[in-house]
Amino acid sequence: MKNNRRFIKPARRYVLLAAISVLILVAAGVTMADSLLLKEQGSFFVGGRSVFTNALTGSTTGFLGNGINTGNITVDQMYVQYQIPEGADPHVPVAMVHGCCLSSKSYETTPDGRMGWNEYFLRKHRAVYLPDQVSRARSGFDATIYNEIKLGKRPASDMPEIRTATHELAWLLFRFGPSMGKPFPDEQFPVEAFEEFGKQVIPDLNAQLPMPNPTWTNLSLLAVKLKGVILMGHSESGFFPEQTALINPTDIKGLITIETGCPALNSDQSSKLNSEQISKLAKIPTLVVFGDHIEDVPSYPKMWKGRFDSCAEFVQQINAAGGDATMMHLPKYGQFGNSHMLMQDKNSNQVADLIIKWIDEHVENKHK
Amino acid sequence: MKNNRRFIKPARRYVLLAAISVLILVAAGVTMADSLLLKEQGSFFVGGRSVFTNALTGSTTGFLGNGINTGNITVDQMYVQYQIPEGADPHVPVAMVHGCCLSSKSYETTPDGRMGWNEYFLRKHRAVYLPDQVSRARSGFDATIYNEIKLGKRPASDMPEIRTATHELAWLLFRFGPSMGKPFPDEQFPVEAFEEFGKQVIPDLNAQLPMPNPTWTNLSLLAVKLKGVILMGHSESGFFPEQTALINPTDIKGLITIETGCPALNSDQSSKLNSEQISKLAKIPTLVVFGDHIEDVPSYPKMWKGRFDSCAEFVQQINAAGGDATMMHLPKYGQFGNSHMLMQDKNSNQVADLIIKWIDEHVENKHK
Repeated sequence: MKNNRRFIKPARRYVLLAAISVLILVAAGVTMADSLLLKEQGSFFVGGRSVFTNALTGSTTGFLGNGINTGNITVDQMYVQYQIPEGADPHVPVAMVHGCCLSSKSYETTPDGRMGWNEYFLRKHRAVYLPDQVSRARSGFDATIYNEIKLGKRPASDMPEIRTATHELAWLLFRFGPSMGKPFPDEQFPVEAFEEFGKQVIPDLNAQLPMPNPTWTNLSLLAVKLKGVILMGHSESGFFPEQTALINPTDIKGLITIETGCPALNSDQSSKLNSEQISKLAKIPTLVVFGDHIEDVPSYPKMWKGRFDSCAEFVQQINAAGGDATMMHLPKYGQFGNSHMLMQDKNSNQVADLIIKWIDEHVENKHK
Repeated sequence: MKNNRRFIKPARRYVLLAAISVLILVAAGVTMADSLLLKEQGSFFVGGRSVFTNALTGSTTGFLGNGINTGNITVDQMYVQYQIPEGADPHVPVAMVHGCCLSSKSYETTPDGRMGWNEYFLRKHRAVYLPDQVSRARSGFDATIYNEIKLGKRPASDMPEIRTATHELAWLLFRFGPSMGKPFPDEQFPVEAFEEFGKQVIPDLNAQLPMPNPTWTNLSLLAVKLKGVILMGHSESGFFPEQTALINPTDIKGLITIETGCPALNSDQSSKLNSEQISKLAKIPTLVVFGDHIEDVPSYPKMWKGRFDSCAEFVQQINAAGGDATMMHLPKYGQFGNSHMLMQDKNSNQVADLIIKWIDEHVENKHK
């Protein structure tokens, strides 16, 4: 074997070495094209405060029967999971907030097993932050009131409204189709994985939160901590980016509002923003996104149309005040059949591309 | 510029090309040593069943006031987040289950901002699965009973026991020190980040779960889905790996029980396992881990000693039945000052190394 090397001339040896190096580089490139290369990942909390509880458990014998049922607990904290891909330095991070009766799971693997927006944005070199709303999922909630009711310290009628969504409600409300089990002919939601979607739906305890919603103040803390972030909200949290900016616009580089009512969820019942508030928001680039079939679900046509119209008006007001707001109604951008859960729809990557293009042009000021 | 190239002889050109290629490879290597290279990541649910609820909300007007307060919801599902690093093929995946009043956050970034066990295991080329226990965090819970109580359909005394831990309780129970605010001289828990730890503590609704605990059956579904997994439990879930194996041992390759009572959390009050159960468990390699200061917290010396002793007895029983069980009391392995939250202690990587060494030797049968 060794003898054979003698027959390879020095120049040829370098050719061989160069060729092997190139092959290794190509192989590494192929691996890296499939793999996800992360600079950093982890989780942390923002916000939260220590409060005294006199009903740590619903039992007079206390935790583990040690007789102690009082003490300090932390409430209103917000859990944030994050990943920073290699090559993210030139881009503004994106924080994606989930909607009612859901958690940050909304933005992870889709119900039919495709890559969620969190990973898609990572692969487009954007750092992604996924908060669970205060009082939901890993952020936890203050259980004191439930224990006080169990202990007879207050009446059952004091119990906060806990919300969730039945399968039947979700199908219609999220515009998977005109009636339970029946999808629209061009439906983009992966209805074959509806059972898996049903598992994402969890109870919503927002009704027990103080006002302003601690999620808003915590999102502001997140923006300041990151020294710049684009806030994205969906459905229940659709206007949270704006609510946060109204509290403190510092380090909020963009507002993305998906499928909600403007300026509040039930906009038809709520007051409009005043001109001072509009001026404040007009300083931040704003994107509003709506899917398809806005008026096509017999049970909810008015609700979605009302929300859509309120946001169209909001966009107009921001632009009239010198701002940069875009109304992205997906059918007008060539994407048809999108549901309320458009981050999980079969064309979710195409919708993400439209949003990333908006970020590049309106927040990062590229290709303009 | 172009003219200069003429002066580089062909052989030298290849030397240069080879040198540049090597430099690029080295640069890529440096990046990859710091970066995390993932083959795949995502999240999914295991288990869950559809049930009819007659109290979707605690309001007679229903969700969004649409008058509908009944329908089908999914309960008992378990959320699982996972990451598979490059190079994981030769190793058995590890599922890490959290304890009471906590979520999978336990295994992520430590309260003082260091890498958690999830990332440390990934960097040791192990796929990591992080479930949130059923009725906790992103797995959600069945809110029907609370809404029924609010609606006056059942008495407040029917409310399940909701558990959490005060800061004062956590300090003692988790053995951060002998009295609130005072750490042991050799304490490994990062007590300077105790406030951040307090934010991880969230309400525990396990008391409302049916038996057998759906987390156990779901962990079995996870094992079968993955075609092999090592189950790790901590504290409340410390014996969940064994409970799962007793239901169905299929595809469970190892059992890791951290800081709990054996065979059940309050082992002194519970019945022992029978010989048939011991024989069943003896077929799977088992590791039990305990930290330091077992008898050093004045309020809880007996509890921890009781748990420790019950597990020592369990290990003995497994080995007597021909099994391979190891009792890893960390001080005997050269790790001192560990708390109950040993996956977050300052020497968490060293503790992880001991566990990985045990996996290599007892589950993957290497270096034996």
